[in-house]
Amino acid sequence: MAGFFDDLRRAVRARRSLLCVGLDPDPERIPGGASGALRHCLEVVRRTADHACCYKPNVAFWEQYGPDGWEALFELRAQIPDGVPVILDGKRADVGNTMRAYARAAFEVLDADAITANPYLGADALQELTAYPERGVYVLCRTSNPGARDLQHLEVEGRPLYLHVADLALRVGGQGNVGLVVGATAPEEMAAIRATSPLPFLVPGVGAQGGDLERALRAAWNGDEASCLVAVGRTVLYADDPEREAIALKERTRLALMEVEAR
Amino acid sequence: MAGFFDDLRRAVRARRSLLCVGLDPDPERIPGGASGALRHCLEVVRRTADHACCYKPNVAFWEQYGPDGWEALFELRAQIPDGVPVILDGKRADVGNTMRAYARAAFEVLDADAITANPYLGADALQELTAYPERGVYVLCRTSNPGARDLQHLEVEGRPLYLHVADLALRVGGQGNVGLVVGATAPEEMAAIRATSPLPFLVPGVGAQGGDLERALRAAWNGDEASCLVAVGRTVLYADDPEREAIALKERTRLALMEVEAR
Repeated sequence: MAGFFDDLRRAVRARRSLLCVGLDPDPERIPGGASGALRHCLEVVRRTADHACCYKPNVAFWEQYGPDGWEALFELRAQIPDGVPVILDGKRADVGNTMRAYARAAFEVLDADAITANPYLGADALQELTAYPERGVYVLCRTSNPGARDLQHLEVEGRPLYLHVADLALRVGGQGNVGLVVGATAPEEMAAIRATSPLPFLVPGVGAQGGDLERALRAAWNGDEASCLVAVGRTVLYADDPEREAIALKERTRLALMEVEAR
Repeated sequence: MAGFFDDLRRAVRARRSLLCVGLDPDPERIPGGASGALRHCLEVVRRTADHACCYKPNVAFWEQYGPDGWEALFELRAQIPDGVPVILDGKRADVGNTMRAYARAAFEVLDADAITANPYLGADALQELTAYPERGVYVLCRTSNPGARDLQHLEVEGRPLYLHVADLALRVGGQGNVGLVVGATAPEEMAAIRATSPLPFLVPGVGAQGGDLERALRAAWNGDEASCLVAVGRTVLYADDPEREAIALKERTRLALMEVEAR
């Protein structure tokens, strides 16, 4: 069955790229309200579509524009070229009945190919998303922010909580449609997660957040083309030349990957 | 300074009610798309405004209608009478920069009085919300769904994770603008949380999810009028007569409260 992760692998091969470009417009940096944000992001898509294997709009940034923001997000999604999957970054989590509504909104209404989800509500919440076998679900495991340590590093039975989350994701990922969000700002934790989990990683935190691309690749890559999807946001979105920036990042990733594979 | 929790206490006193009515339209039960949902919810607000101290639209249900749903949610918020606070139930959590966008969307754009938030990303994420001292933030602590046990009950240093979350919420709640979400389906856990935390509770899970209103009140109430906000959803929203249902629930709550206070 064709599913999100197979589509992603195909896009990685076709574009020889592991880059996932975040589409997160900031009203303080882009003039013109929601239509300005849409125009800016569509131009970035146009300039990077040969170098990105995936796009990732984060809902928060579109919500700032009120109802016009949602209208623009739908228009953006509709205009992303076929063959480049779209991850809706919403980090959703709620009780079953409500999670079903989030799933419907993301997969049936917006037609996103994948979504990010928060594990705090447990398996039954996540399963409302994984019930769509052809869509992908990235479960937050070890996030890229400083506060990640507050709960995710607490020790449960001798192992940090984030490894228990990795186990939980494996349990709900029986259909091969689940991955993990693991921040590039924590390469040691990433290696620990990779040692226990074969799931694909979505890796934010490179760029403005200071994560090290090369170390992340060494920690995450396991030969699966979907094993280390590198999410970049502001670095590309606000570059003077988004295409040049995307190409540069793609090349850096390829060089790092060649080193990893030569080990 | 006037803030959400003081407004809530005032509304509790004025209406002699602890009821928070969820406004979560289901397209399979309400005909007419987003405008049907808006009409239905506004009618429920009109019929219950003297008996509810608070309203709580859950974003998921409005997102199902696409951009029209957000438009309707804004219209709904604008028409909720002054003096009855509105909690945006979005269970948000993201890294700092993104959380700031969620805060702006909820508090500045939609003008919600409070929001629900997920603790998995830690203090820095929550602090982007608590930075608005006049708005309220309810942190998920022990949720009402079966999957709550998967992570929330894991034992850390001899105590379940949800008690560590209660501590985290206290740490970020220094300005008196933080509460906890504690499901009515787990009255024993609720009592354990109350034993360690004086924060106001938002209590979902009564009604369709099977939680026991009386037991929840006994576990949560600590004399603070905001200490046990009882969230009801489908029970009122789809009642033949939402006003009669709201009055009945309000009376049940008052009787239970008299018993608790007589102890």
